[in-house]
Amino acid sequence: MYQASNPGFVKTLNNLTAILDKAERYVTERKIDPEVLLTWRIAPDMFPLTRQIQLTSDFAKSAPARLAGKEVPKYPDEEKTFAELKARIAKTLKFVESISPKDLDGCETRDINFTLGGQNVHFKGEPYLVHFVLPNFYFHATTAYDIIRSFGVELGKRDFLGM
Amino acid sequence: MYQASNPGFVKTLNNLTAILDKAERYVTERKIDPEVLLTWRIAPDMFPLTRQIQLTSDFAKSAPARLAGKEVPKYPDEEKTFAELKARIAKTLKFVESISPKDLDGCETRDINFTLGGQNVHFKGEPYLVHFVLPNFYFHATTAYDIIRSFGVELGKRDFLGM
Repeated sequence: MYQASNPGFVKTLNNLTAILDKAERYVTERKIDPEVLLTWRIAPDMFPLTRQIQLTSDFAKSAPARLAGKEVPKYPDEEKTFAELKARIAKTLKFVESISPKDLDGCETRDINFTLGGQNVHFKGEPYLVHFVLPNFYFHATTAYDIIRSFGVELGKRDFLGM
Repeated sequence: MYQASNPGFVKTLNNLTAILDKAERYVTERKIDPEVLLTWRIAPDMFPLTRQIQLTSDFAKSAPARLAGKEVPKYPDEEKTFAELKARIAKTLKFVESISPKDLDGCETRDINFTLGGQNVHFKGEPYLVHFVLPNFYFHATTAYDIIRSFGVELGKRDFLGM
């Protein structure tokens, strides 16, 4: 369970930091107000870049916390700049890295209960990770990448994979 | 290793089939040539929808094959319609479901060797799954979703998660 979650989160969060660096450089060089990119979207009723990064952080921090039976750290969604988004990622990384493989021992069958859009949700640990956390985490990380790509920033899948 | 890979692939591939059904209905109702959506992209130098689905299929079939030490099935990338893309997904599902948990016993440390863009790539089984397959699989599945969303098709993340 630890191997299937935390190392992948750490790698992708680090890759997102490097992608945000390229995105920031792109708008700075072109004298584009950074807010234009931070509020860019794939579709009018999809979340903008800032929110995609916040949600990527949310899945990365809530999964190991819940699987370890610890309190999920609360981060207020107040980021307004690239620097603040990178600080959010750094804070998330620090938390993910504070969870050890031992903390997740036996969490496959742990009862995971939380509320989602006002509804109570229940999972066992393993399906929670496989069918909820991983698709959600990569969904928001990829959509952040796709938003930045759609804006014109030169990126390749190697940036996403950190290869 | 089995639990971290195949059940997630199966679920997401089934969800993509339902998403393609909605996408096809959208163009049919509006008398839009299906090819317009099948060749739609997030950015000019990103792959179009058809290729994103083919690549999602490629990661779903190659991972369990390589982890089990079996031949990776070869599917020619010739799909030109929604029906053909759904048949490609169905074929992929059939293969993924033919691999049993026992086939992946001990594959964490298996040597995985293949070529990527003409270069030899080597992984041990576990980092191959965690740092290569899962990010790639969800990257292409999410980008397929994002392309369809950017086209205007009414979808929500619940379609992606199959909730």
